[in-house]
Amino acid sequence: MASKTTVSNHIVLTSHPTGGQKPIEIKWGATDAKTRGPVVATPAGSGWRNAIGSYSGSYSVYRALAVAAGSLDPLHKPDLTNTAPAVDMGPFPQWTDPQKIVSIDPWGHRVEDVFADHIEAGIDVRPTMAVTRARLKVPELIAKHSGLHLEADGKVLLETGEVNVTKVAIEPVWHLPGIAQRFNTDEHTMRRSLFEQTGGMFSELVTRPDLHVFLPPIGGITVYLFGDVGAITDSNRQLSCRVHDECNGSDVFGSDICTCRPYLIHGIEDAIQTAQEGGAGVIVYNRKEGRALGEVTKFLVYNARKRQHGGDTADRYFERTECVAGVQDMRFQELMPDVLNWLGITRIDRFISMSNLKYDAIVGQGIEIVERIPIPEHMVPTDAKVEMDAKKAAGYFTNGEVPTAKELAKKHGRDLKDY
Amino acid sequence: MASKTTVSNHIVLTSHPTGGQKPIEIKWGATDAKTRGPVVATPAGSGWRNAIGSYSGSYSVYRALAVAAGSLDPLHKPDLTNTAPAVDMGPFPQWTDPQKIVSIDPWGHRVEDVFADHIEAGIDVRPTMAVTRARLKVPELIAKHSGLHLEADGKVLLETGEVNVTKVAIEPVWHLPGIAQRFNTDEHTMRRSLFEQTGGMFSELVTRPDLHVFLPPIGGITVYLFGDVGAITDSNRQLSCRVHDECNGSDVFGSDICTCRPYLIHGIEDAIQTAQEGGAGVIVYNRKEGRALGEVTKFLVYNARKRQHGGDTADRYFERTECVAGVQDMRFQELMPDVLNWLGITRIDRFISMSNLKYDAIVGQGIEIVERIPIPEHMVPTDAKVEMDAKKAAGYFTNGEVPTAKELAKKHGRDLKDY
Repeated sequence: MASKTTVSNHIVLTSHPTGGQKPIEIKWGATDAKTRGPVVATPAGSGWRNAIGSYSGSYSVYRALAVAAGSLDPLHKPDLTNTAPAVDMGPFPQWTDPQKIVSIDPWGHRVEDVFADHIEAGIDVRPTMAVTRARLKVPELIAKHSGLHLEADGKVLLETGEVNVTKVAIEPVWHLPGIAQRFNTDEHTMRRSLFEQTGGMFSELVTRPDLHVFLPPIGGITVYLFGDVGAITDSNRQLSCRVHDECNGSDVFGSDICTCRPYLIHGIEDAIQTAQEGGAGVIVYNRKEGRALGEVTKFLVYNARKRQHGGDTADRYFERTECVAGVQDMRFQELMPDVLNWLGITRIDRFISMSNLKYDAIVGQGIEIVERIPIPEHMVPTDAKVEMDAKKAAGYFTNGEVPTAKELAKKHGRDLKDY
Repeated sequence: MASKTTVSNHIVLTSHPTGGQKPIEIKWGATDAKTRGPVVATPAGSGWRNAIGSYSGSYSVYRALAVAAGSLDPLHKPDLTNTAPAVDMGPFPQWTDPQKIVSIDPWGHRVEDVFADHIEAGIDVRPTMAVTRARLKVPELIAKHSGLHLEADGKVLLETGEVNVTKVAIEPVWHLPGIAQRFNTDEHTMRRSLFEQTGGMFSELVTRPDLHVFLPPIGGITVYLFGDVGAITDSNRQLSCRVHDECNGSDVFGSDICTCRPYLIHGIEDAIQTAQEGGAGVIVYNRKEGRALGEVTKFLVYNARKRQHGGDTADRYFERTECVAGVQDMRFQELMPDVLNWLGITRIDRFISMSNLKYDAIVGQGIEIVERIPIPEHMVPTDAKVEMDAKKAAGYFTNGEVPTAKELAKKHGRDLKDY
């Protein structure tokens, strides 16, 4: 099969600003989109590139396969007709504050509109966000076997048990100086670590200090909005919010070793109820599998927990993860509040999480949290009590009792042979 | 905060074999693990590296953040105590055939065992697979509102509606010559496209032709096994199998625009039933969101479908994706059968999918498919009929009628304003 991969035969290992036209400057946090400038991360026509990495992050690997296999023209530009946001979002004051948002492009859903001149001039500017509408059939709500017994209102929750939402898909777009600042390090150290610790991903991280924006090939974010989107930023109306980190085993398959899906469902129920009472509900879904350690590490830790001397106990829950991964958690909630700032949120009335790490990160960004809502006891699966106790002892919010050392040492979890 | 990022101050842009000890040769498809050699993709102590990329793929970006923030020692090596597979898997003849498996490391779950000498000698060899056990609470099965009404057997399916499974997490490990061959191209073209079309990810793809193994930062695979694992390769027992490509909006949130979660549930039900009858069930879950185009592109296409002149119709279903993405689909089922080969599968009695692309890829790898099982009509959500009709017309398997051009042109899908 003929390959259409290469336009020229000259491999450019790392691009240089002298190679063609000068890249459009990105003024992160500028007062309007045009002054800020578009993020251009198209491999083709690289003269206009002003960012490290690529649109679609990880999925650019599949695009590369498509080009190599001859099924995709490497010069293809997307036709964005009719793709504009289904619901207007923003702009909010947080969009033009370079400190408030450092890991997503606040204008990413509106490029077709705000960068129309650039696109017209032939620059391949692509959306890094998309806003659409959806109708959800959440099995627990359809079956009504959750504890809440929501009443249908015909608008948010239908008689059939279906739910109407607005949803937003977001790809990460990092402003490296801001990222470094969030982690209390300098940009140079951050860039070097990103290059070296990934086995040499994107040499431009170290060769192009003039480029400050990076599109990392990591999972993105999906936001589900319940009720009137206008209520999210209306201080007279209530806001319910859950920030949920992906856990495929529980979220999709209902594995009972953790509380992930039950807590997510509780968050959805609270979001619906708050929307029905005239407020709004926000569910943020972050693609950070297994505390951002990945699923292989997660399963290795499960085995180590269940096989250790004395069995699976809460007092050694975090220790086992640290033995395998070197850290207890890599989710780094420092960047998480960006999406809340993007939504214009300044106050969360009901925060559906017990995580002190999430709480601290949000409050640290100046967003008020009025009340923290734990998962109801009856929604915690039996095998997940190990996790729950370990987290409470480590500083998770609870309005119940914090387990004692003696309770933490008791064997709780199922043994590997008991399946 | 002090950073522990750098061990030396010299940045090495691309490694060279002369830099230290000679990397251990990887003889892909060799007759045993020791002859094959370990895949070493650790950033630290890079003298032993014999692969491009990094362990944990995408999640190495989070590891880099952890190092930059000073929370992870860059020289940390995992303590693999008690992490070994919870259930023995293989080896199977397919593991030592260099053509049968090109995108995963067949020895990836057993490194602690088969490469014990290397690990003992100080080489940081890490698992790229992990095998554990789990108990699932699938809400549709608990609620028993699926059509099938499975009976509990106390072993696979418990009285509570819970299900016992073995599960495997798998990270991609690509043998580049084999990958190129699957796509009918040459290794050089493939490497160059992978480098250029990703915006310059991993310069070693073009500077280190001596390294043939690549760990791409893309989503991996999870396999769920129902029933006796020994039945999977026993030709006297039945095997049910669904290969499912991730769709977060449906799989987790139950969005009704597609059939993803309903078909997955149908696959799980069939897997349980086959296991209860003495056979086994296999669900393969591939992290390839939105046909491997990513969720942003997917939502853009949803908007374009629903806003186009004449509304959301089956006859223009694929066209809208192609306008935005340049192709209809980037999942490239060419690599998908590897995991079935890894499981030792030579015959699937019941294949729970209508996809001609999946069918062709599996049969093309010499695996027999006895029967193809469509999703039952009553499980197809109303708004998903557009997708279903479009796919049938494009060659998807159906034991019903293929829709006519007139039917395909009828407006089916909900309009954006009707939510």
